[in-house]
Amino acid sequence: MDKITDAPNFKITTGPLPASRKVYQPGRLHPDIRVPHREIATHASANEPPLPVYDTSGPYTDPESEIDINRGLPRWRTPLIETRGDVEAYDGRLVKPEDNGGANTVPAFPQHPRPLRAKGGVAVTQYEYARRGLITPEMEYVAIRENEARKELAKRDGEDFGAEIPDFVTPEFVRDEIARGRAIIPCNINHPELEPMIIGRNFLVKVNANIGNSAVTSSVAEEVDKMVWAIRWGADTVMDLSTGRNIHNIRDWIIRNSPVPIGTVPIYQALEKVNGKAEDLTWEVYRDTLIEQAEQGVDYFTIHAGVRLAYIPLTANRVTGIVSRGGSILAKWCLAHHRENFLYTHFEDICDIMRTYDISFSLGDGLRPGSTADANDAAQFAELETLGELTKIAWAKGVQVMIEGPGHVAMHKIKANMLKQLRTCGEAPFYTLGPLTTDIAPGYDHITSGIGAAMIGWYGCAMLCYVTPKEHLGLPDRNDVKTGVITYRIAAHAADLAKGHPGAARRDDALSRARFEFRWEDQFNLGLDPETAAQFHDQTLPKEAHKTAHFCSMCGPKFCSMKISQEVRDAARMQNDVASQGMTEMAERFRQQGGEIYR
Amino acid sequence: MDKITDAPNFKITTGPLPASRKVYQPGRLHPDIRVPHREIATHASANEPPLPVYDTSGPYTDPESEIDINRGLPRWRTPLIETRGDVEAYDGRLVKPEDNGGANTVPAFPQHPRPLRAKGGVAVTQYEYARRGLITPEMEYVAIRENEARKELAKRDGEDFGAEIPDFVTPEFVRDEIARGRAIIPCNINHPELEPMIIGRNFLVKVNANIGNSAVTSSVAEEVDKMVWAIRWGADTVMDLSTGRNIHNIRDWIIRNSPVPIGTVPIYQALEKVNGKAEDLTWEVYRDTLIEQAEQGVDYFTIHAGVRLAYIPLTANRVTGIVSRGGSILAKWCLAHHRENFLYTHFEDICDIMRTYDISFSLGDGLRPGSTADANDAAQFAELETLGELTKIAWAKGVQVMIEGPGHVAMHKIKANMLKQLRTCGEAPFYTLGPLTTDIAPGYDHITSGIGAAMIGWYGCAMLCYVTPKEHLGLPDRNDVKTGVITYRIAAHAADLAKGHPGAARRDDALSRARFEFRWEDQFNLGLDPETAAQFHDQTLPKEAHKTAHFCSMCGPKFCSMKISQEVRDAARMQNDVASQGMTEMAERFRQQGGEIYR
Repeated sequence: MDKITDAPNFKITTGPLPASRKVYQPGRLHPDIRVPHREIATHASANEPPLPVYDTSGPYTDPESEIDINRGLPRWRTPLIETRGDVEAYDGRLVKPEDNGGANTVPAFPQHPRPLRAKGGVAVTQYEYARRGLITPEMEYVAIRENEARKELAKRDGEDFGAEIPDFVTPEFVRDEIARGRAIIPCNINHPELEPMIIGRNFLVKVNANIGNSAVTSSVAEEVDKMVWAIRWGADTVMDLSTGRNIHNIRDWIIRNSPVPIGTVPIYQALEKVNGKAEDLTWEVYRDTLIEQAEQGVDYFTIHAGVRLAYIPLTANRVTGIVSRGGSILAKWCLAHHRENFLYTHFEDICDIMRTYDISFSLGDGLRPGSTADANDAAQFAELETLGELTKIAWAKGVQVMIEGPGHVAMHKIKANMLKQLRTCGEAPFYTLGPLTTDIAPGYDHITSGIGAAMIGWYGCAMLCYVTPKEHLGLPDRNDVKTGVITYRIAAHAADLAKGHPGAARRDDALSRARFEFRWEDQFNLGLDPETAAQFHDQTLPKEAHKTAHFCSMCGPKFCSMKISQEVRDAARMQNDVASQGMTEMAERFRQQGGEIYR
Repeated sequence: MDKITDAPNFKITTGPLPASRKVYQPGRLHPDIRVPHREIATHASANEPPLPVYDTSGPYTDPESEIDINRGLPRWRTPLIETRGDVEAYDGRLVKPEDNGGANTVPAFPQHPRPLRAKGGVAVTQYEYARRGLITPEMEYVAIRENEARKELAKRDGEDFGAEIPDFVTPEFVRDEIARGRAIIPCNINHPELEPMIIGRNFLVKVNANIGNSAVTSSVAEEVDKMVWAIRWGADTVMDLSTGRNIHNIRDWIIRNSPVPIGTVPIYQALEKVNGKAEDLTWEVYRDTLIEQAEQGVDYFTIHAGVRLAYIPLTANRVTGIVSRGGSILAKWCLAHHRENFLYTHFEDICDIMRTYDISFSLGDGLRPGSTADANDAAQFAELETLGELTKIAWAKGVQVMIEGPGHVAMHKIKANMLKQLRTCGEAPFYTLGPLTTDIAPGYDHITSGIGAAMIGWYGCAMLCYVTPKEHLGLPDRNDVKTGVITYRIAAHAADLAKGHPGAARRDDALSRARFEFRWEDQFNLGLDPETAAQFHDQTLPKEAHKTAHFCSMCGPKFCSMKISQEVRDAARMQNDVASQGMTEMAERFRQQGGEIYR
């Protein structure tokens, strides 16, 4: 415990976003579930109900919840999991010194309930249940969550490239999508604190944020807060890419306090256990690491089983070779032994572990391009074909699967990636890093990649892995993480809008109305980052009165187009010829005339 | 002069970017022209020649040039213009107090050469010359500039949606594109300091930055430096959107010191002259303002002649009405008088002025959507049809034309904008603001719009008007301007890459090679913003030795995929079975086998 007070002034970030309150909706099939949304209130003059939006932030933004990272979040899913009758508690693997890289400067998490596993090695996965026709609490949970408390049927407007997004998401639709392998709910049975979320092309586009331990860990609270901070701004899942010292214990603290799925790349920790020598890796060390992390509750594993020995020479003439850390580790192992990748040869063994805990595959793209020059090349697509084969094996084993994608891809090659992935991998969800659409802007790769992310999300990518401004250059700090998450929320939302997701335009329209009506506070609060928006506004017009002013600093009172536009509207209403018929009729009449003139 | 010393510590930003030097290339048809490029040197270990890149920054980055804003830049085009024999100097319009909004706190620019105009009202435009088959110095200048000192034929890889980008740009190709109305060189004969640039779908995508005067002008140097700062980071043109006090004089200082085309929206100044009352605007006041700015050397005018009376009711049911300042001013005028827009009724008169000085039209989209809800609606497209009609009139008068576009448009509606503009306006260059692909991120609209800008650039948009992080919220400061310009350079370059511009990939590939070979300084210097990249790197690894380290702070030495990848490459080379044939052959052999397996 002492360690937590190492940084006595450090506090976990809690409290609601401005003008927001948390609301919960119960299930109908499963009345015990409480699905959170955030409601954003607008000014009374707007005469609009509060806007409910999707909320990734967990209990941290709920003033009613008591946050104590020493206790972790409530383990509310445990009774639901145990009710299914197909799991058993057991004495888990003992923590070894090498799990923490030989360090013990971070204390173990105070409580250690016995881990759960499937009885008799059966599949206890959402995929398996869905195939059997079972609608689980997790499925109903995400169905309610995806509808964002929408009651009205929305006008559909978009181009979805063959996606099948329903007007409203039903629990049965969720079950069907999971059974078809087109969506996953990453939810390890040992992560009962989770608020389930779904990743699939026919649902809202999701965002992942990567976090990692600092070289000098000042406190456990700081490590936990990295996750809390990322989900506050909209990360749907968090990957813990920590390496080195104390990582087992830090991971425990993070998972016990995380309402979002946690992903890892187990080969990183396995490599630590063999002192960083890739050629010393063995199946046994790797397997042990999978069990270790499975018992902790990791929800999805990146596994680079597609980096086959035969594909490695295909990277020899690349501009940037192999840039995936996992990919390069495995390539080195393959070449050192001149043997096939042991993750490939042991793939069914891995599936047997994954299904025992309901851990989802995130099949890694170890040969993804590290430059636009290498995009869509033979190495990348050879690996993708293998990932397609492995997807079918995983499904046969009852395991949930998503597929990782690039990387660095110029805009004209993005769609080919999406189409090929859908075809090759049987529509399993695609999860891409960016892609970066040009290589020439180190320091701005959240933007080079935000462009590609928005586009591939539109084309059908289910989850976008964020890139921060520090990509290629250094470790992201708190501001970088926030910038990365917000940039990717923009990309994901732009994709939802363009796909014609029936709920997506609500927030844009509410914010645009606020903008047009000079409801400044509403404009800030309905945005993705109310604090920054308010701060930017106040830099030029700091006075409180300016928050209700019918102009802003860009144009001043005389030049405000919105003000003039409202005067225009009023003037038009008052003019006899217009007022007699109403503007709407005028517009309609013109449209009919216009149709003749311009066709 | 005194005013300049008001801020004695303020210096115009000069000096080269890191590792860069300016090189000049003479013309062949016109040996007097000197076309600038920037050469970026790489580390000796790279064994690569310096990389020449397009350079918008003018003499300010050339240590050989003496910068004195009191003298302005050299008026090098004057003899070339006078040689044509079709212009005459005359006593220009006298400056009136209302030109400066009644203020006189900014001194007049010290020198006042007599302005030039066409003799006898003929067209002295690049369009007219091109139609006559004349290749002007300006045309050869941009031809050389567009080739970026490339000598080699590049592999073409892209999707250009029907653009016709040549392997190399020849002066004759430039002439032909201008004659067809598909490109413009904005170059007022009274702006002889200009380094000509071309705007057209078959050339590199360009970026515009907006600047404006501050409420409190501390010095003329500061106002000039806004332009210098914007072009340093890559603005191809600058629009001066100043209003209010001292604007005539400030504009003079800016133009006399600007190597890039300056655009304005003359209605802003005209409105000032009638004390901000739109209904008091008259053709006479507007005409006088056009002449005033024409004589100063403004290169293009935004003119909202498409906001027709009949279209105004079409905006009544919009979520955000009319959001263009110019559009709303004219709408108000039209409704107040219940008369057709005087810019529309006087369009031929305006053309006569434009052709006298070779000012290009930027036909304004006064009815552009201010929210994604209003995108692609009847009002917007009705105006676009009118802009198409006006384009043909302008061409008949010999005037150069580009067309302004939106605004706020979700991704799935962007391509329709581009296609409709090309069809309606006879392929006249399109110049769009963003578009913003979602409305929900005030504070991040450089990103919401950077996504749309990259896409519309790819589809064929010729110039992208930047949006800064302060959009909708406040006045951009120096950092915002830089962020906006860099974001838009990313968008423009991503578009060039995707279009398959033959020179675009050179810089990406050079930077990727530097990245793979751990040439850190080269990676920074080849990027769009070397300072920020170096700073980000140094935040985690500040020591000089780390600039040559074969790892970085993200993964550390053990985990560096690039390091492992190079080891993989070396290992593969040494293995007998591989070494005997070479990696290339192996790869080829695999590809052939793979072809059988995977097809």
